[in-house]
Amino acid sequence: MILGRVIGTVVSTRKDERLTGFKLLVVETLQPGKKTGVEEFVAVDTVGAGVGETVLVVMGSPASRIMTGADVLVPVDAAIVGIVDTVELAGSR
Amino acid sequence: MILGRVIGTVVSTRKDERLTGFKLLVVETLQPGKKTGVEEFVAVDTVGAGVGETVLVVMGSPASRIMTGADVLVPVDAAIVGIVDTVELAGSR
Amino acid sequence: MILGRVIGTVVSTRKDERLTGFKLLVVETLQPGKKTGVEEFVAVDTVGAGVGETVLVVMGSPASRIMTGADVLVPVDAAIVGIVDTVELAGSR
Amino acid sequence: MILGRVIGTVVSTRKDERLTGFKLLVVETLQPGKKTGVEEFVAVDTVGAGVGETVLVVMGSPASRIMTGADVLVPVDAAIVGIVDTVELAGSR
Amino acid sequence: MILGRVIGTVVSTRKDERLTGFKLLVVETLQPGKKTGVEEFVAVDTVGAGVGETVLVVMGSPASRIMTGADVLVPVDAAIVGIVDTVELAGSR
Repeated sequence: MILGRVIGTVVSTRKDERLTGFKLLVVETLQPGKKTGVEEFVAVDTVGAGVGETVLVVMGSPASRIMTGADVLVPVDAAIVGIVDTVELAGSR
Repeated sequence: MILGRVIGTVVSTRKDERLTGFKLLVVETLQPGKKTGVEEFVAVDTVGAGVGETVLVVMGSPASRIMTGADVLVPVDAAIVGIVDTVELAGSR
Repeated sequence: MILGRVIGTVVSTRKDERLTGFKLLVVETLQPGKKTGVEEFVAVDTVGAGVGETVLVVMGSPASRIMTGADVLVPVDAAIVGIVDTVELAGSR
Repeated sequence: MILGRVIGTVVSTRKDERLTGFKLLVVETLQPGKKTGVEEFVAVDTVGAGVGETVLVVMGSPASRIMTGADVLVPVDAAIVGIVDTVELAGSR
Repeated sequence: MILGRVIGTVVSTRKDERLTGFKLLVVETLQPGKKTGVEEFVAVDTVGAGVGETVLVVMGSPASRIMTGADVLVPVDAAIVGIVDTVELAGSR
Protein backbone atom coordinates (compact mmCIF):
# COMPACT_ATOMS: atom_id res chain seq x y z
CA MET A 1 0.00 0.00 0.00
CA ILE A 2 0.99 3.62 -0.35
CA LEU A 3 1.13 6.33 2.31
CA GLY A 4 -0.32 9.55 0.93
CA ARG A 5 -1.82 12.91 1.80
CA VAL A 6 -5.15 14.05 0.42
CA ILE A 7 -4.46 17.33 -1.39
CA GLY A 8 -7.64 17.92 -3.35
CA THR A 9 -10.88 16.75 -4.91
CA VAL A 10 -12.01 15.92 -8.44
CA VAL A 11 -15.46 16.63 -9.83
CA SER A 12 -16.52 14.64 -12.92
CA THR A 13 -20.15 14.64 -13.97
CA ARG A 14 -19.69 12.78 -17.30
CA LYS A 15 -18.27 9.51 -15.99
CA ASP A 16 -18.80 5.74 -15.87
CA GLU A 17 -22.06 5.34 -13.96
CA ARG A 18 -20.53 2.79 -11.60
CA LEU A 19 -18.37 5.61 -10.18
CA THR A 20 -21.48 7.54 -9.14
CA GLY A 21 -21.58 8.21 -5.40
CA PHE A 22 -17.85 7.72 -4.82
CA LYS A 23 -15.79 10.68 -3.54
CA LEU A 24 -12.76 11.17 -5.89
CA LEU A 25 -9.75 12.56 -4.01
CA VAL A 26 -6.34 13.74 -5.32
CA VAL A 27 -3.60 12.02 -3.28
CA GLU A 28 0.08 12.91 -3.13
CA THR A 29 2.45 10.04 -2.23
CA LEU A 30 4.32 10.38 1.06
CA GLN A 31 7.72 8.88 1.70
CA PRO A 32 8.23 9.62 5.44
CA GLY A 33 11.97 9.01 5.28
CA LYS A 34 12.40 10.99 2.08
CA LYS A 35 11.16 13.93 0.06
CA THR A 36 7.39 14.30 0.31
CA GLY A 37 5.00 14.26 -2.61
CA VAL A 38 6.59 12.33 -5.45
CA GLU A 39 3.48 11.28 -7.46
CA GLU A 40 -0.13 12.42 -7.63
CA PHE A 41 -3.08 10.21 -8.48
CA VAL A 42 -6.83 9.94 -7.85
CA ALA A 43 -8.33 7.47 -5.37
CA VAL A 44 -11.87 6.73 -4.27
CA ASP A 45 -12.52 7.22 -0.58
CA THR A 46 -13.98 4.36 1.48
CA VAL A 47 -13.31 5.60 5.04
CA GLY A 48 -14.40 9.28 5.10
CA ALA A 49 -10.98 10.86 4.51
CA GLY A 50 -10.68 14.63 4.05
CA VAL A 51 -8.21 17.07 2.49
CA GLY A 52 -4.99 17.32 4.51
CA GLU A 53 -5.30 13.87 6.10
CA THR A 54 -2.59 11.20 5.87
CA VAL A 55 -4.09 8.06 4.35
CA LEU A 56 -3.36 4.43 3.45
CA VAL A 57 -4.14 3.65 -0.24
CA VAL A 58 -4.39 0.21 -1.88
CA MET A 59 -3.50 0.16 -5.59
CA GLY A 60 -4.32 -1.94 -8.70
CA SER A 61 -6.87 -4.71 -9.01
CA PRO A 62 -7.07 -5.30 -5.22
CA ALA A 63 -8.66 -1.81 -5.13
CA SER A 64 -11.30 -2.61 -7.78
CA ARG A 65 -12.49 -5.73 -6.01
CA ILE A 66 -12.56 -4.43 -2.46
CA MET A 67 -15.29 -2.00 -3.41
CA THR A 68 -17.83 -4.68 -4.23
CA GLY A 69 -16.29 -8.11 -4.11
CA ALA A 70 -15.34 -10.09 -7.21
CA ASP A 71 -18.67 -10.09 -9.00
CA VAL A 72 -19.58 -6.41 -9.51
CA LEU A 73 -16.73 -4.60 -11.30
CA VAL A 74 -16.07 -0.93 -10.62
CA PRO A 75 -13.48 0.93 -12.74
CA VAL A 76 -11.19 1.75 -9.79
CA ASP A 77 -7.44 1.12 -9.39
CA ALA A 78 -6.79 3.11 -6.17
CA ALA A 79 -8.87 3.17 -2.97
CA ILE A 80 -8.26 4.90 0.39
CA VAL A 81 -8.64 2.14 3.00
CA GLY A 82 -7.36 3.83 6.15
CA ILE A 83 -6.78 7.18 7.83
CA VAL A 84 -3.33 7.10 9.43
CA ASP A 85 -2.98 8.03 13.11
CA THR A 86 0.79 7.71 13.35
CA VAL A 87 3.81 6.59 11.31
CA GLU A 88 6.72 5.59 13.53
CA LEU A 89 10.12 5.21 11.84
CA ALA A 90 13.01 3.39 13.45
CA GLY A 91 15.09 5.75 15.75
CA SER A 92 18.31 5.53 13.70
CA ARG A 93 16.78 7.28 10.72
CA MET B 1 -6.70 6.41 -11.16
CA ILE B 2 -4.67 8.90 -13.17
CA LEU B 3 -5.52 12.47 -14.16
CA GLY B 4 -4.55 13.07 -17.77
CA ARG B 5 -5.07 15.27 -20.81
CA VAL B 6 -6.01 13.81 -24.18
CA ILE B 7 -3.29 14.98 -26.60
CA GLY B 8 -3.90 12.85 -29.67
CA THR B 9 -5.37 9.84 -31.41
CA VAL B 10 -3.99 6.52 -32.65
CA VAL B 11 -5.11 4.74 -35.81
CA SER B 12 -4.35 1.02 -36.06
CA THR B 13 -6.03 -1.06 -38.71
CA ARG B 14 -4.08 -4.31 -38.14
CA LYS B 15 -5.05 -4.99 -34.53
CA ASP B 16 -6.67 -7.54 -32.22
CA GLU B 17 -10.26 -7.76 -33.44
CA ARG B 18 -11.62 -7.25 -29.94
CA LEU B 19 -10.28 -3.67 -30.09
CA THR B 20 -12.43 -2.91 -33.12
CA GLY B 21 -14.81 -0.03 -32.50
CA PHE B 22 -12.90 1.45 -29.57
CA LYS B 23 -11.47 4.97 -29.92
CA LEU B 24 -7.71 4.90 -29.03
CA LEU B 25 -6.54 8.16 -27.47
CA VAL B 26 -3.02 9.34 -26.51
CA VAL B 27 -3.11 10.62 -22.93
CA GLU B 28 -0.48 12.68 -21.12
CA THR B 29 -0.40 12.31 -17.32
CA LEU B 30 -1.26 15.44 -15.32
CA GLN B 31 0.11 16.18 -11.89
CA PRO B 32 -1.85 19.33 -10.92
CA GLY B 33 0.53 20.23 -8.14
CA LYS B 34 3.61 19.55 -10.25
CA LYS B 35 5.08 19.64 -13.72
CA THR B 36 2.54 18.66 -16.35
CA GLY B 37 2.90 15.74 -18.75
CA VAL B 38 5.26 13.20 -17.25
CA GLU B 39 4.22 10.02 -19.13
CA GLU B 40 2.28 9.27 -22.30
CA PHE B 41 0.19 6.18 -22.92
CA VAL B 42 -2.82 5.01 -24.95
CA ALA B 43 -6.27 4.51 -23.44
CA VAL B 44 -9.60 3.44 -24.85
CA ASP B 45 -12.39 5.98 -24.48
CA THR B 46 -15.65 4.98 -22.78
CA VAL B 47 -17.22 8.40 -22.11
CA GLY B 48 -16.82 10.38 -25.36
CA ALA B 49 -13.66 12.30 -24.45
CA GLY B 50 -11.95 14.53 -27.04
CA VAL B 51 -8.49 15.98 -27.65
CA GLY B 52 -7.64 18.70 -25.11
CA GLU B 53 -10.02 17.43 -22.41
CA THR B 54 -8.89 16.57 -18.86
CA VAL B 55 -9.84 12.99 -18.10
CA LEU B 56 -9.88 10.32 -15.38
CA VAL B 57 -8.16 7.07 -16.47
CA VAL B 58 -8.30 3.66 -14.73
CA MET B 59 -5.20 1.49 -15.28
CA GLY B 60 -4.31 -2.22 -15.28
CA SER B 61 -6.66 -5.20 -15.10
CA PRO B 62 -9.54 -3.11 -13.65
CA ALA B 63 -9.57 -1.43 -17.09
CA SER B 64 -9.78 -4.69 -19.05
CA ARG B 65 -12.74 -5.97 -17.08
CA ILE B 66 -14.80 -2.78 -16.97
CA MET B 67 -15.20 -2.88 -20.71
CA THR B 68 -17.19 -6.08 -20.75
CA GLY B 69 -17.34 -7.59 -17.32
CA ALA B 70 -15.25 -10.58 -16.26
CA ASP B 71 -16.23 -13.06 -18.97
CA VAL B 72 -15.32 -11.37 -22.27
CA LEU B 73 -11.64 -10.36 -22.25
CA VAL B 74 -10.50 -7.29 -24.18
CA PRO B 75 -6.76 -6.54 -24.46
CA VAL B 76 -6.98 -3.18 -22.64
CA ASP B 77 -4.97 -1.91 -19.66
CA ALA B 78 -6.08 1.76 -19.63
CA ALA B 79 -9.61 3.17 -20.02
CA ILE B 80 -10.93 6.74 -19.81
CA VAL B 81 -13.83 6.57 -17.32
CA GLY B 82 -14.55 10.24 -16.69
CA ILE B 83 -14.27 13.73 -18.14
CA VAL B 84 -13.08 16.06 -15.38
CA ASP B 85 -15.03 19.24 -14.65
CA THR B 86 -12.78 20.61 -11.92
CA VAL B 87 -9.73 19.65 -9.84
CA GLU B 88 -9.61 21.59 -6.56
CA LEU B 89 -6.31 21.50 -4.64
CA ALA B 90 -6.03 22.49 -1.00
CA GLY B 91 -5.44 26.32 -0.62
CA SER B 92 -1.97 26.00 0.92
CA ARG B 93 -0.42 24.48 -2.20
CA MET C 1 -1.59 0.55 -23.43
CA ILE C 2 1.89 1.61 -24.47
CA LEU C 3 3.10 2.92 -27.80
CA GLY C 4 6.39 1.26 -28.73
CA ARG C 5 8.78 0.45 -31.51
CA VAL C 6 10.02 -3.08 -32.16
CA ILE C 7 13.82 -2.92 -31.95
CA GLY C 8 14.83 -6.58 -31.82
CA THR C 9 14.10 -10.23 -31.20
CA VAL C 10 14.80 -12.67 -28.38
CA VAL C 11 15.64 -16.34 -28.86
CA SER C 12 15.15 -18.63 -25.85
CA THR C 13 15.17 -22.38 -26.33
CA ARG C 14 15.05 -23.34 -22.61
CA LYS C 15 11.74 -21.74 -21.65
CA ASP C 16 8.29 -22.44 -20.21
CA GLU C 17 6.68 -24.75 -22.74
CA ARG C 18 3.54 -22.59 -22.91
CA LEU C 19 5.66 -19.88 -24.56
CA THR C 20 6.53 -22.21 -27.44
CA GLY C 21 5.44 -20.84 -30.79
CA PHE C 22 5.18 -17.22 -29.68
CA LYS C 23 7.49 -14.64 -31.31
CA LEU C 24 9.36 -12.69 -28.53
CA LEU C 25 10.11 -9.12 -29.58
CA VAL C 26 12.17 -6.40 -27.82
CA VAL C 27 10.08 -3.21 -27.66
CA GLU C 28 11.24 0.31 -26.85
CA THR C 29 8.59 2.63 -25.37
CA LEU C 30 7.66 5.64 -27.49
CA GLN C 31 6.48 8.93 -26.06
CA PRO C 32 5.51 10.86 -29.24
CA GLY C 33 5.52 14.21 -27.50
CA LYS C 34 8.75 13.51 -25.67
CA LYS C 35 12.12 11.81 -25.81
CA THR C 36 11.90 8.44 -27.58
CA GLY C 37 12.87 5.11 -26.04
CA VAL C 38 12.61 5.36 -22.28
CA GLU C 39 12.18 1.66 -21.32
CA GLU C 40 12.81 -1.65 -23.05
CA PHE C 41 10.87 -4.84 -22.43
CA VAL C 42 9.88 -8.07 -24.19
CA ALA C 43 6.41 -8.68 -25.61
CA VAL C 44 4.82 -11.57 -27.45
CA ASP C 45 3.52 -10.72 -30.89
CA THR C 46 -0.13 -11.46 -31.78
CA VAL C 47 -0.55 -9.40 -34.98
CA GLY C 48 2.53 -10.14 -37.13
CA ALA C 49 4.63 -7.12 -36.13
CA GLY C 50 8.21 -6.75 -37.38
CA VAL C 51 11.39 -4.92 -36.35
CA GLY C 52 11.08 -1.17 -36.92
CA GLU C 53 7.28 -1.07 -36.73
CA THR C 54 5.35 1.16 -34.29
CA VAL C 55 3.08 -1.01 -32.17
CA LEU C 56 0.36 -0.91 -29.49
CA VAL C 57 1.24 -3.08 -26.45
CA VAL C 58 -1.11 -4.16 -23.62
CA MET C 59 0.64 -4.78 -20.26
CA GLY C 60 0.07 -6.84 -17.12
CA SER C 61 -2.56 -9.51 -16.51
CA PRO C 62 -4.80 -8.27 -19.37
CA ALA C 63 -1.97 -9.49 -21.64
CA SER C 64 -1.80 -12.96 -20.12
CA ARG C 65 -5.51 -13.60 -20.51
CA ILE C 66 -5.95 -12.23 -24.04
CA MET C 67 -3.72 -14.96 -25.38
CA THR C 68 -6.06 -17.75 -24.44
CA GLY C 69 -8.93 -16.50 -22.40
CA ALA C 70 -9.16 -16.95 -18.64
CA ASP C 71 -8.79 -20.74 -18.40
CA VAL C 72 -5.42 -21.51 -20.03
CA LEU C 73 -2.66 -19.47 -18.35
CA VAL C 74 0.37 -18.34 -20.35
CA PRO C 75 3.28 -16.65 -18.54
CA VAL C 76 2.97 -13.36 -20.46
CA ASP C 77 2.71 -9.80 -19.12
CA ALA C 78 3.08 -7.84 -22.39
CA ALA C 79 1.45 -8.51 -25.75
CA ILE C 80 1.56 -6.57 -29.05
CA VAL C 81 -2.12 -6.10 -30.03
CA GLY C 82 -1.87 -3.59 -32.88
CA ILE C 83 0.39 -2.20 -35.56
CA VAL C 84 0.04 1.58 -35.57
CA ASP C 85 -0.74 3.37 -38.83
CA THR C 86 -0.66 6.92 -37.50
CA VAL C 87 -0.35 8.84 -34.22
CA GLU C 88 -1.87 12.32 -34.48
CA LEU C 89 -1.02 14.78 -31.70
CA ALA C 90 -2.99 17.93 -31.08
CA GLY C 91 -1.70 20.87 -33.29
CA SER C 92 -0.51 23.03 -30.39
CA ARG C 93 2.16 20.57 -29.30
CA MET D 1 9.26 -9.82 -5.35
CA ILE D 2 11.05 -6.94 -3.71
CA LEU D 3 13.87 -7.02 -1.17
CA GLY D 4 13.22 -4.47 1.53
CA ARG D 5 14.04 -3.39 5.07
CA VAL D 6 11.35 -2.73 7.65
CA ILE D 7 11.88 0.86 8.81
CA GLY D 8 8.72 1.59 10.75
CA THR D 9 5.12 0.92 11.66
CA VAL D 10 1.78 2.50 10.77
CA VAL D 11 -1.15 2.85 13.16
CA SER D 12 -4.58 3.40 11.58
CA THR D 13 -7.68 3.00 13.72
CA ARG D 14 -10.21 4.27 11.13
CA LYS D 15 -9.65 1.71 8.39
CA ASP D 16 -11.34 -0.96 6.26
CA GLU D 17 -12.45 -3.58 8.78
CA ARG D 18 -10.85 -6.38 6.77
CA LEU D 19 -7.44 -4.90 7.65
CA THR D 20 -8.12 -5.36 11.35
CA GLY D 21 -5.54 -7.57 13.02
CA PHE D 22 -2.87 -7.13 10.36
CA LYS D 23 0.44 -5.47 11.34
CA LEU D 24 1.14 -2.55 8.90
CA LEU D 25 4.88 -2.04 8.38
CA VAL D 26 6.75 0.70 6.47
CA VAL D 27 9.25 -0.96 4.10
CA GLU D 28 12.13 0.67 2.25
CA THR D 29 13.20 -1.06 -0.99
CA LEU D 30 16.70 -2.55 -1.00
CA GLN D 31 18.82 -2.86 -4.09
CA PRO D 32 21.83 -4.85 -2.77
CA GLY D 33 24.01 -3.95 -5.74
CA LYS D 34 22.97 -0.32 -5.69
CA LYS D 35 21.92 2.61 -3.52
CA THR D 36 19.73 1.47 -0.64
CA GLY D 37 16.23 2.72 0.00
CA VAL D 38 14.75 3.98 -3.25
CA GLU D 39 11.00 3.72 -2.49
CA GLU D 40 8.88 3.43 0.67
CA PHE D 41 5.56 1.67 0.91
CA VAL D 42 3.36 -0.13 3.45
CA ALA D 43 3.03 -3.91 3.59
CA VAL D 44 1.10 -6.26 5.83
CA ASP D 45 3.23 -8.73 7.75
CA THR D 46 2.52 -12.46 7.45
CA VAL D 47 5.73 -13.94 8.94
CA GLY D 48 6.40 -11.96 12.14
CA ALA D 49 8.90 -9.47 10.72
CA GLY D 50 10.22 -6.64 12.89
CA VAL D 51 11.77 -3.20 12.39
CA GLY D 52 15.31 -3.44 11.01
CA GLU D 53 14.84 -6.86 9.42
CA THR D 54 15.50 -7.56 5.71
CA VAL D 55 12.35 -8.99 4.15
CA LEU D 56 10.89 -10.45 0.94
CA VAL D 57 7.72 -8.62 -0.19
CA VAL D 58 5.20 -9.77 -2.85
CA MET D 59 3.37 -6.92 -4.62
CA GLY D 60 0.06 -6.37 -6.45
CA SER D 61 -2.90 -8.74 -6.67
CA PRO D 62 -0.79 -11.81 -5.76
CA ALA D 63 -0.50 -10.14 -2.31
CA SER D 64 -4.25 -9.65 -1.89
CA ARG D 65 -5.08 -13.26 -2.62
CA ILE D 66 -2.35 -14.93 -0.59
CA MET D 67 -3.87 -13.55 2.56
CA THR D 68 -7.09 -15.50 2.25
CA GLY D 69 -7.27 -17.31 -1.04
CA ALA D 70 -9.38 -16.10 -3.95
CA ASP D 71 -12.76 -15.90 -2.27
CA VAL D 72 -12.31 -13.48 0.66
CA LEU D 73 -10.91 -10.15 -0.61
CA VAL D 74 -8.63 -8.06 1.59
CA PRO D 75 -7.59 -4.57 0.42
CA VAL D 76 -3.86 -5.38 0.33
CA ASP D 77 -1.34 -4.89 -2.49
CA ALA D 78 1.92 -5.66 -0.60
CA ALA D 79 2.62 -8.52 1.83
CA ILE D 80 5.84 -9.55 3.62
CA VAL D 81 6.22 -13.27 2.84
CA GLY D 82 9.74 -13.97 4.07
CA ILE D 83 12.47 -12.83 6.46
CA VAL D 84 15.77 -12.91 4.59
CA ASP D 85 18.73 -14.77 6.11
CA THR D 86 21.28 -13.95 3.40
CA VAL D 87 21.54 -12.29 -0.01
CA GLU D 88 24.56 -13.56 -1.95
CA LEU D 89 25.60 -11.55 -5.01
CA ALA D 90 27.90 -12.92 -7.68
CA GLY D 91 31.62 -12.34 -6.76
CA SER D 92 32.40 -9.99 -9.64
CA ARG D 93 30.06 -7.29 -8.37
CA MET E 1 8.30 -9.46 -19.82
CA ILE E 2 11.64 -8.17 -18.62
CA LEU E 3 15.12 -9.11 -19.78
CA GLY E 4 17.40 -9.56 -16.79
CA ARG E 5 20.64 -11.07 -15.54
CA VAL E 6 20.76 -13.32 -12.48
CA ILE E 7 23.19 -11.66 -10.07
CA GLY E 8 22.61 -13.54 -6.83
CA THR E 9 20.55 -15.76 -4.58
CA VAL E 10 18.33 -15.18 -1.54
CA VAL E 11 18.04 -17.55 1.40
CA SER E 12 14.94 -17.19 3.61
CA THR E 13 14.10 -19.91 6.10
CA ARG E 14 11.20 -18.08 7.84
CA LYS E 15 8.86 -17.63 4.89
CA ASP E 16 5.37 -18.40 3.59
CA GLU E 17 5.27 -22.20 3.37
CA ARG E 18 3.98 -22.09 -0.21
CA LEU E 19 7.38 -20.67 -1.24
CA THR E 20 9.16 -23.77 0.05
CA GLY E 21 11.14 -25.54 -2.65
CA PHE E 22 11.36 -22.55 -4.99
CA LYS E 23 14.82 -21.11 -5.80
CA LEU E 24 14.81 -17.31 -5.08
CA LEU E 25 17.16 -15.43 -7.42
CA VAL E 26 18.19 -11.75 -7.43
CA VAL E 27 17.72 -10.38 -10.96
CA GLU E 28 19.07 -7.12 -12.40
CA THR E 29 17.03 -5.63 -15.27
CA LEU E 30 18.79 -5.45 -18.65
CA GLN E 31 18.08 -2.80 -21.25
CA PRO E 32 20.18 -4.04 -24.21
CA GLY E 33 20.06 -0.72 -26.02
CA LYS E 34 20.74 1.27 -22.86
CA LYS E 35 22.54 1.28 -19.52
CA THR E 36 22.52 -2.17 -17.93
CA GLY E 37 21.07 -2.94 -14.53
CA VAL E 38 18.48 -0.33 -13.66
CA GLU E 39 16.39 -2.22 -11.06
CA GLU E 40 16.91 -5.27 -8.85
CA PHE E 41 14.19 -7.63 -7.71
CA VAL E 42 13.69 -11.24 -6.65
CA ALA E 43 12.15 -13.89 -8.91
CA VAL E 44 11.43 -17.58 -8.49
CA ASP E 45 13.15 -19.80 -10.99
CA THR E 46 11.11 -22.22 -13.11
CA VAL E 47 13.64 -23.20 -15.81
CA GLY E 48 16.91 -23.96 -13.95
CA ALA E 49 18.59 -20.56 -14.40
CA GLY E 50 21.93 -19.83 -12.71
CA VAL E 51 23.91 -16.78 -11.61
CA GLY E 52 25.29 -14.86 -14.60
CA GLU E 53 22.67 -16.08 -17.07
CA THR E 54 20.46 -13.75 -19.12
CA VAL E 55 16.82 -14.56 -18.44
CA LEU E 56 13.23 -13.73 -19.43
CA VAL E 57 11.06 -12.77 -16.40
CA VAL E 58 7.24 -12.47 -16.29
CA MET E 59 5.95 -9.97 -13.70
CA GLY E 60 2.78 -9.40 -11.66
CA SER E 61 -0.23 -11.69 -11.32
CA PRO E 62 0.61 -13.65 -14.51
CA ALA E 63 3.65 -14.88 -12.52
CA SER E 64 1.62 -16.02 -9.52
CA ARG E 65 -0.76 -18.10 -11.59
CA ILE E 66 1.74 -19.76 -13.93
CA MET E 67 3.29 -21.58 -10.99
CA THR E 68 0.22 -23.62 -10.24
CA GLY E 69 -2.70 -22.52 -12.33
CA ALA E 70 -5.54 -20.37 -11.01
CA ASP E 71 -6.66 -22.50 -8.07
CA VAL E 72 -3.55 -22.82 -5.86
CA LEU E 73 -2.21 -19.34 -4.97
CA VAL E 74 1.52 -18.83 -4.44
CA PRO E 75 2.78 -15.46 -3.17
CA VAL E 76 4.89 -14.73 -6.27
CA ASP E 77 4.94 -11.65 -8.51
CA ALA E 78 8.03 -12.42 -10.63
CA ALA E 79 9.02 -15.73 -12.26
CA ILE E 80 11.92 -16.63 -14.58
CA VAL E 81 10.29 -18.36 -17.57
CA GLY E 82 13.17 -18.55 -20.04
CA ILE E 83 16.96 -18.60 -20.38
CA VAL E 84 17.91 -16.30 -23.24
CA ASP E 85 20.16 -17.61 -26.01
CA THR E 86 20.42 -14.39 -28.03
CA VAL E 87 19.01 -10.87 -28.14
CA GLU E 88 19.29 -9.36 -31.63
CA LEU E 89 18.74 -5.61 -31.92
CA ALA E 90 18.03 -3.90 -35.22
CA GLY E 91 21.30 -2.94 -37.06
CA SER E 92 20.75 0.82 -36.91
CA ARG E 93 21.03 0.97 -33.12
